[in-house]
Amino acid sequence: MQKILVANRGEIAIRVMRSAREMGIKTVAVYSATDRTALHVRYADEAVFIGEAPANQSYLVGEKIIEACKQTGATAIHPGYGFLSENPVFAAMVREAGLTLIGPSPEAMEIMGNKLSAKAAAMKYNIPMVPGTEEAITDVSEAKLRAIEVGFPILIKAAAGGGGKGMRIVEQADDFEEQMQLAVSEATSAFGDGSVFIERYVSSPRHIEIQVLGDTHGNIVHLFERDCSVQRRHQKVVEEAPSFILTEAIRAEMGRCAVDVARSVNYTGAGTVEFILDDDLNFYFLEMNTRLQVEHPVSELITGLDLVKEQIKIARGEALCFKQEDLKIIGHAMELRVYAEDPANNFLPDIGTLQTYRTPKGPGVRVDDGFEQGMEIPIYYDPMIAKLITYGANREEAIERMIRAIDEYEITGIKTTLGFGKFVMQHEAFTSGQFDTHFVKKYFTPEVLDVHKDDEAFIASLVMEKLLSNKSSAPNTVANNGEQSDWVKNRRG
Amino acid sequence: MQKILVANRGEIAIRVMRSAREMGIKTVAVYSATDRTALHVRYADEAVFIGEAPANQSYLVGEKIIEACKQTGATAIHPGYGFLSENPVFAAMVREAGLTLIGPSPEAMEIMGNKLSAKAAAMKYNIPMVPGTEEAITDVSEAKLRAIEVGFPILIKAAAGGGGKGMRIVEQADDFEEQMQLAVSEATSAFGDGSVFIERYVSSPRHIEIQVLGDTHGNIVHLFERDCSVQRRHQKVVEEAPSFILTEAIRAEMGRCAVDVARSVNYTGAGTVEFILDDDLNFYFLEMNTRLQVEHPVSELITGLDLVKEQIKIARGEALCFKQEDLKIIGHAMELRVYAEDPANNFLPDIGTLQTYRTPKGPGVRVDDGFEQGMEIPIYYDPMIAKLITYGANREEAIERMIRAIDEYEITGIKTTLGFGKFVMQHEAFTSGQFDTHFVKKYFTPEVLDVHKDDEAFIASLVMEKLLSNKSSAPNTVANNGEQSDWVKNRRG
Repeated sequence: MQKILVANRGEIAIRVMRSAREMGIKTVAVYSATDRTALHVRYADEAVFIGEAPANQSYLVGEKIIEACKQTGATAIHPGYGFLSENPVFAAMVREAGLTLIGPSPEAMEIMGNKLSAKAAAMKYNIPMVPGTEEAITDVSEAKLRAIEVGFPILIKAAAGGGGKGMRIVEQADDFEEQMQLAVSEATSAFGDGSVFIERYVSSPRHIEIQVLGDTHGNIVHLFERDCSVQRRHQKVVEEAPSFILTEAIRAEMGRCAVDVARSVNYTGAGTVEFILDDDLNFYFLEMNTRLQVEHPVSELITGLDLVKEQIKIARGEALCFKQEDLKIIGHAMELRVYAEDPANNFLPDIGTLQTYRTPKGPGVRVDDGFEQGMEIPIYYDPMIAKLITYGANREEAIERMIRAIDEYEITGIKTTLGFGKFVMQHEAFTSGQFDTHFVKKYFTPEVLDVHKDDEAFIASLVMEKLLSNKSSAPNTVANNGEQSDWVKNRRG
Repeated sequence: MQKILVANRGEIAIRVMRSAREMGIKTVAVYSATDRTALHVRYADEAVFIGEAPANQSYLVGEKIIEACKQTGATAIHPGYGFLSENPVFAAMVREAGLTLIGPSPEAMEIMGNKLSAKAAAMKYNIPMVPGTEEAITDVSEAKLRAIEVGFPILIKAAAGGGGKGMRIVEQADDFEEQMQLAVSEATSAFGDGSVFIERYVSSPRHIEIQVLGDTHGNIVHLFERDCSVQRRHQKVVEEAPSFILTEAIRAEMGRCAVDVARSVNYTGAGTVEFILDDDLNFYFLEMNTRLQVEHPVSELITGLDLVKEQIKIARGEALCFKQEDLKIIGHAMELRVYAEDPANNFLPDIGTLQTYRTPKGPGVRVDDGFEQGMEIPIYYDPMIAKLITYGANREEAIERMIRAIDEYEITGIKTTLGFGKFVMQHEAFTSGQFDTHFVKKYFTPEVLDVHKDDEAFIASLVMEKLLSNKSSAPNTVANNGEQSDWVKNRRG
């Protein structure tokens, strides 16, 4: 494996190329018309143009990716995340072309890509699932019996459903019939199908996922958990490792289950097994992501491993050079996804030019990004500007560093989620570890950012005061008003 | 301790302020006329002008520093390294003013600031010294007897000496009289004093230093070693932790000795005990530096501690919150000092404007710097632009990351030591760990950098070839000639 083509763009393309370069492997970038001057193109040893900006004309066209390999002599493809990374058809096409996909087999991708087949595979290993009916049901009294078995609160959801239609939370058995009838009639009118599933309703869920690595020699290990409970509309915004809430026993048990899920499909490469965790620390299998995750750096920091290098070594057929018992959690890592979005305006993407762009540095700070000052955030892709990752001896230090790094980050020209991230880091529910996936819905309103606007006025008044008092007493003292207003800008992100 | 004044400039001032900010402590910068727009001034909460550019009119004037504290209400001073950091007179002045110096007592500074009193203090704890005469000697036959006791090779050096004058290396007893007479006559004519010291000559010395931390409750621990053997004219250029060469037993023994040296002066704060190590791994006390070292980040990375935070906590009177047995070495860290110097021209300072300045990022890379694009490197101070620090699971990975980071670092407008650093990282003597303080003298000539010039021509020819061949066969493939020439620029730094 002398040359790898990275079938992706932005920060993850550069992330992959960095590890390849450290291993002495050449890299090939691919780029769309809008990405001609992107950093991942500059970073690679070679670059191949693959089409117009919309991803379905470039980054999503498997044939063009394979053609680019042939042109450049790249023998392996790293798909990053998103785009073609979990597409079993593409994975099969790569194999067909005699190339190596740095990822799992098309078969593993296919099974885990479908909720039903994924659950079926996991069940062979007795992995805990959210208790409920395995099949759709229409009969109310049968449904009630099952609901009593499962235990309240109960979630009734339309089998054909989506978007919350035909979904009901039932707190107690007495209310069941009424709510079920409402759910069925809602589902019938919405989808023309009144059948429903019944499952236990997890009222305060935490999203805990386990990183796994499997080699082609049958060795599978886990790299502990990431807590990704801070989400906005099911999109992760803050991730950390380890989780504040797990005990050693549950950590070990979840790890063992994740390894078993991976084993159920002979998983090779890096993958993530996602679980939901309830108030009583019961965990249930959700799904498996058959690729490198956006949030993989937090696992790298607490284990000291380079996950991309491990992926490449596995794809080269090497056996893992460590065993489960060699892996230890050291310290605590925190990641904030910095988006070009306006938190004060419903997180609408705020596309434009990075007029100022200065990234934080110093101890315990890592920035994985794909932009520099003067560049534009294109409208065609995910509006993530950077991943801001901090590491500390413990959770408190990782949070302090995150706040310090957010304050250091200078971005003007577009709105970002930096200020939102600072809100999370300073919120008592987050610092105390008592939060679930409802955190953002529960606590965040645009008004909390206005607190910082008041701050700004407050700081400005202090600065004025200082300047006036300095004029008489100490003419060579200046308050850093310029810098402080930058911080306030960041806070409001 | 609500507000700390940082009596320094550049990267170390910012480094200190970062930790203070994470601890919720306000910071005050001081600046000279030439540093008005420097980053450390922008980073601080407040800044005080203290005089003209030459350090003896600003950063070295203790009274101005103390006055700046009074003006701003700062109750503690962090001196960084250099400038006033090891000045016992300043330390006493700070105490006198009712302020806290974040560092050891003036008494400890004073004793360790003088080679003779430092040795005398260390001797109480039976710390190994380079074997030799404790007092100056003039009698040739007595000297020869002592030389035979000490063992050959022997170094004869003028008691009043300096600059290599009156210095002789003697390989065997037969040559002793002749060489001693030459040394004495040289010393007499140079210094008017013919007396000499005799000590064992360490022909392949390694510079190993031990980081220590002592609190005000009598607890002293060591944070293992740093190997700083790669030096240019006694100036460290590459530092790493741990050392490639130490055994566990010698590491523990050196650590114990370093703690004893610190104990001999009731040391408080962060300090460094320097040793010389010979071919047979015998170590000898050199001196103690009573401040934070330039190279402290490598110790932070392998221990997970923030040394500035530890300094501040000690100065606040807190006890260390860990014991010696809690400290473990995890991974390997490497530091390159990036200087504005021209390695092809005898490392002459190359002052000017940073026309391009882009720092490396990503996994395992930390940059501690004090500049940004467009800024000028002032002629008045140390020409260090940045410390480039990498961390990996092992030494090999730390080196690979250093090379990758050097390649990513883009600096134009001035010559730097980046290319020299790459030469070190790729040299077989360095990668194999078989080097001593003569490494640079032994292996480096400006011509080794010319290899990369040839590289450039070679790459350019490849690029041309590629472009021509692409024109016919694959018009949408481009080799990144722009980026590659940037790398070559770096290499030649």
